Amino acid sequence: RDTLDTQLNVLQDFNPIVPEKYRDAAVVMLGNLDPNVQQNVLNQLTPNLNRKVLLDTMNFWMDLELPTLLEVIKQVDVITINDEEASQLSGESNLVLAAKAIHKMGPEFVIIKKGEHGALLFYKDHPFFAPALPLEKVVDPTGAGDSFAGGLSGYLAAQQTTTAQAIKEGILYGTTAASLCVGAMGTANLVQASNEDFLKQFQKLERLRNIIS
Amino acid sequence: RDTLDTQLNVLQDFNPIVPEKYRDAAVVMLGNLDPNVQQNVLNQLTPNLNRKVLLDTMNFWMDLELPTLLEVIKQVDVITINDEEASQLSGESNLVLAAKAIHKMGPEFVIIKKGEHGALLFYKDHPFFAPALPLEKVVDPTGAGDSFAGGLSGYLAAQQTTTAQAIKEGILYGTTAASLCVGAMGTANLVQASNEDFLKQFQKLERLRNIIS
Repeated sequence: RDTLDTQLNVLQDFNPIVPEKYRDAAVVMLGNLDPNVQQNVLNQLTPNLNRKVLLDTMNFWMDLELPTLLEVIKQVDVITINDEEASQLSGESNLVLAAKAIHKMGPEFVIIKKGEHGALLFYKDHPFFAPALPLEKVVDPTGAGDSFAGGLSGYLAAQQTTTAQAIKEGILYGTTAASLCVGAMGTANLVQASNEDFLKQFQKLERLRNIIS
Repeated sequence: RDTLDTQLNVLQDFNPIVPEKYRDAAVVMLGNLDPNVQQNVLNQLTPNLNRKVLLDTMNFWMDLELPTLLEVIKQVDVITINDEEASQLSGESNLVLAAKAIHKMGPEFVIIKKGEHGALLFYKDHPFFAPALPLEKVVDPTGAGDSFAGGLSGYLAAQQTTTAQAIKEGILYGTTAASLCVGAMGTANLVQASNEDFLKQFQKLERLRNIIS
């Protein structure tokens, strides 16, 4: 509890100011932080009808700040959340029912991360599945979810489009980033990866998904 | 133990005779049974250079009949096995390493079934992944693995080809059959399913796998 309080105090001191030139951004990724901070960031944005807001969160914030979190989730287009947390948030152990319940909270796109078992996007009546690359060696899973969210939102920002198709492609980019992340301690692999390394890993994922490879 | 002995006695009385006209079959599926029975079936086949032999097995036979099971596995082209059993058979908890070890036992195609998390085919250096359909209601998982093996081998027999591509397509057919199986008690759903029902379920799986759906 003491450690938790210390962590919360540090987090409460974090008060990000969105630079002027980013306030009309079309892609906004709210990383896994205190929902008060996430709301604070949203408040600084200027209107943009084409904007997609993405959000990552975890059990910690559901336990401590659920009402604020639910308020933020209302304003979000895309939520990325792991399977256990999707069940906690929705009260449903079945992922299809969990996704239905989370849709009702606001997000049109519900992405459920299943770690080594891949990621499921629920969108309208047609779910989409991205497998995780089978890896011979997983060194450190820390940051896999953040890498996933970064790969996804980075792809959308680079493409300057946020259609359902782009979001599915972005999920594959996020999966690629996560698979690089877990292969070494901390951010070592991601920092070192060249564009070519990334593309190579992405192509492995495409071969995994396709019958003709 | 008593129940086990009774079951084994019943199984020992099962001595299938392969009808003459099936002895040169190009696709042979050895269902999950005593490896002595599986070997007995193999012994009745006439040579066919284009034949692919598929085998399904489980922990029960690894515990009781490992030497015979390993002897049968040597003669098999395609093995379907669940993730825990792949680890038990190979002594490797990592599935990539487990598949490598099982390849060395004989089968060129190693299919690891992960239940609701889909199935992984390991073949040469290029794994292939088939997701399971996300289902709102799973009534009875009994027979999902058998339905998978049946869908796969039925597809190969119908196509009269056993290329790597056909095996990948067959895995998708097997996944489709399994997803129908678990939706009702026992074989009720499979028995009732029309060709159209099957195709509809298969198309759902294709939408799940593809970016453009």
